[in-house]
Amino acid sequence: MQNEFITVKELYKSKEQYIGKEVKVAGWIRTARGSKNFGFIELNDGSFFKNMQIVYDEKLENFKDISKLPISSSVLVEGELVATEGAKQPVEIHATKIVVEGESDSSYPLQKKRHTLEYLRTIAHLRPRSNTFSAVFRVRSLAAYAIHKFFQDRNFVYAHSPIITGSDCEGAGEMFRLTTMDLNDIPKTEDGKIDYSNDFFGKEANLTVSGQLNAEIMALAFRNVYTFGPTFRAENSNTGRHASEFWMIEPEITFADLEDNMELAEDMIKYVINYVLENAPEEMEFFNSFIDKGLFERLNNVVNSDFVRITYTKAVELLIESGHEFEYPVEWGCDLQTEHERYITEQIYNAPVFVTDYPKDIKAFYMRMNEDGKTVRAMDLLVPGVGEIVGGSQREERHDVLLDRIKEMNLNEEDYWWYLELRKFGTATHSGFGLGFERIIMYMTGMSNIRDVIPFPRTPKNAEF
Amino acid sequence: MQNEFITVKELYKSKEQYIGKEVKVAGWIRTARGSKNFGFIELNDGSFFKNMQIVYDEKLENFKDISKLPISSSVLVEGELVATEGAKQPVEIHATKIVVEGESDSSYPLQKKRHTLEYLRTIAHLRPRSNTFSAVFRVRSLAAYAIHKFFQDRNFVYAHSPIITGSDCEGAGEMFRLTTMDLNDIPKTEDGKIDYSNDFFGKEANLTVSGQLNAEIMALAFRNVYTFGPTFRAENSNTGRHASEFWMIEPEITFADLEDNMELAEDMIKYVINYVLENAPEEMEFFNSFIDKGLFERLNNVVNSDFVRITYTKAVELLIESGHEFEYPVEWGCDLQTEHERYITEQIYNAPVFVTDYPKDIKAFYMRMNEDGKTVRAMDLLVPGVGEIVGGSQREERHDVLLDRIKEMNLNEEDYWWYLELRKFGTATHSGFGLGFERIIMYMTGMSNIRDVIPFPRTPKNAEF
Repeated sequence: MQNEFITVKELYKSKEQYIGKEVKVAGWIRTARGSKNFGFIELNDGSFFKNMQIVYDEKLENFKDISKLPISSSVLVEGELVATEGAKQPVEIHATKIVVEGESDSSYPLQKKRHTLEYLRTIAHLRPRSNTFSAVFRVRSLAAYAIHKFFQDRNFVYAHSPIITGSDCEGAGEMFRLTTMDLNDIPKTEDGKIDYSNDFFGKEANLTVSGQLNAEIMALAFRNVYTFGPTFRAENSNTGRHASEFWMIEPEITFADLEDNMELAEDMIKYVINYVLENAPEEMEFFNSFIDKGLFERLNNVVNSDFVRITYTKAVELLIESGHEFEYPVEWGCDLQTEHERYITEQIYNAPVFVTDYPKDIKAFYMRMNEDGKTVRAMDLLVPGVGEIVGGSQREERHDVLLDRIKEMNLNEEDYWWYLELRKFGTATHSGFGLGFERIIMYMTGMSNIRDVIPFPRTPKNAEF
Repeated sequence: MQNEFITVKELYKSKEQYIGKEVKVAGWIRTARGSKNFGFIELNDGSFFKNMQIVYDEKLENFKDISKLPISSSVLVEGELVATEGAKQPVEIHATKIVVEGESDSSYPLQKKRHTLEYLRTIAHLRPRSNTFSAVFRVRSLAAYAIHKFFQDRNFVYAHSPIITGSDCEGAGEMFRLTTMDLNDIPKTEDGKIDYSNDFFGKEANLTVSGQLNAEIMALAFRNVYTFGPTFRAENSNTGRHASEFWMIEPEITFADLEDNMELAEDMIKYVINYVLENAPEEMEFFNSFIDKGLFERLNNVVNSDFVRITYTKAVELLIESGHEFEYPVEWGCDLQTEHERYITEQIYNAPVFVTDYPKDIKAFYMRMNEDGKTVRAMDLLVPGVGEIVGGSQREERHDVLLDRIKEMNLNEEDYWWYLELRKFGTATHSGFGLGFERIIMYMTGMSNIRDVIPFPRTPKNAEF
């Protein structure tokens, strides 16, 4: 049956082909107004951000029923596609037949009045039918595809890193524990410890916080790879920027240093933004008009800038020289706070900025040590309006240096046996970065809460739908 | 630095452009043989299934070192690309300089002798460097992209369904429990039950077994959507076809019935197979030659067949009429076993077969009830060599019928409040199916164990790497 119905998108895009012809569409009533003798329906069929206006009159045999339909009822419409002149929409359908597929109810909560985003989160099963969320989730879909297309066109291998992990290898903080044990009766060993030997995996298991270490395995076989999958943080932080479950993209490239890494990140971000601007112009117009009036200016600035590259040491100097009073004072060795990051990218450069070569003590063990013995080949990408959006590094490819760092940071050498072996059997210069997918969706839409760019967000005390 | 090195893929694909020119490549030594005055290296750089032959002689200043390099050492090679005549490879590089990037070790376990697949699983950090696994994981990557491309080209929205769920909504069996409680000291309520109110999500949380119900939410807003993400089963079954973590594709289409659903599944499967055959010809040749000699024949049969469509009732009749003796006897009402499914698709039709309209008692609550009150609008797609590869249905869109089924199956109505509301606010005919991603990879490669098509498989007692 689906083939019978032309999509609204098709009718807009190829209207010349259909004007004056009989067409059938199927969709949901977004708004309706009627009078005694005729009525208008704004129909959305999900294929396109814009609605199709349906005009009908008392010649419809079920005229009275149609004019009383509640918002969100689904209908099948037959009629002629007609060019409108001077109207805000270029075409409309003059209906000759309207069949009710699913009548809605007057208690439908998404009435025309404006709802708060907070309220809409409580009806996550209906909010994709609103303008805002239909735009957000279509952009999310297109951005995801753009990422795949960007890497596949460059012959990267999409590597599925595991979600369930046997150990907290990245040491990135609180993880979700996974078990099939009966929590009412947890088996114990003789000395009173939890006996994981009978748990599903025979040992402790957690949800991954990063696929990077696995991606390195793949990069040392396939040269260039990327992951794109869900990652997890069991952090009890209720901010607009943190979710317990989010998607991450982690490219990893071999025979490639930090310069290559920065070039890749820059190219990728520009590509994704351009792809979405080209493929979701209606949605992006909506965001620019109703969510964030500076959006186009900001995105165009990113797309048309050469990203700046400075060292951490230089960044600290610039921040100190600026004389600006920060909440957290700046000195060499400190971690850069969002206020510092934003000052650099917004005030000093008004462009995206890569900051590189951070002090080793504020970065992870796997980052490549510089000759100075104090800094590592890390990079963070800072963008105006947000701060950090990408974090990456050249990886420590030298077996002995890596082993020293693992010991120095009191990590358990045995947990890293295979990671170390990668440095034993044909190691090579390699680099990679991570991009939080939701971060870039927020950046491209102007939505300010991560809960509003994930269809069914998971946060502390919240796993509804 | 990466731009300095031309990929082996590029050298093969555009060899005319490079023959006679100086080129630089970087890669790993797959095999090497040398004599007193010259040597050969089969170099793989990860960009391409095939190796590049490097020829060098004693004019290299480090000739002696190079000729002693262990397998899997990484090297940077400069030299001239030369056309070879009558050799099995069309080009080779006559090296003028070879720099050792990372010397391997003679203990490298992937030596030339053949290893068992079981052994290779224990070195999952190195097996992607073997021919078999380099082919498998590249095909996996291309197939994943083909799925995205198929749906995006048709304007489907990629919907991210949640991994963490608050309830076992599909009732699909054993789930992994998720917690941040201290398992040594689980909080209890006054009446001695586990107090989930202080757990991370404030209630029980599990890993998803299917994104379908969430996908239905999205389909009733966007018309056509698909999910593609990891799903989980805590089943303690150690077979070659079951993993605890696997990826699933779940399209969901609205204003669409079971016929549309079958058409979509057929189109998708043909598209993915064709895409992989076109984009990984070297890998597919390898599988056809070394893993499964009937592979091309089988895949071509699928691509060129019109898939058969029969009802379950008809299938049972045919099985009984066949007179074949099955381990599990067939009668109307029984679930079809793999032996039955394979008999239908291999012996009766020698083509892919959709079986539809199963008895309601062996299918899920959400499938649309037929007029007969006994069967539901389910479909399974059976393919030669495997049996079931896709399962789907038209969904019950009638609120009251769905509610009756929920009660009849003793499910908790409250758990489905939003799922039921979808049928209240503009319900519509809709359908969808699920495809286990690993199943189709196994089908396309001839690999017979699911552990060998997942880079880092998770199965009972196994969560290594």
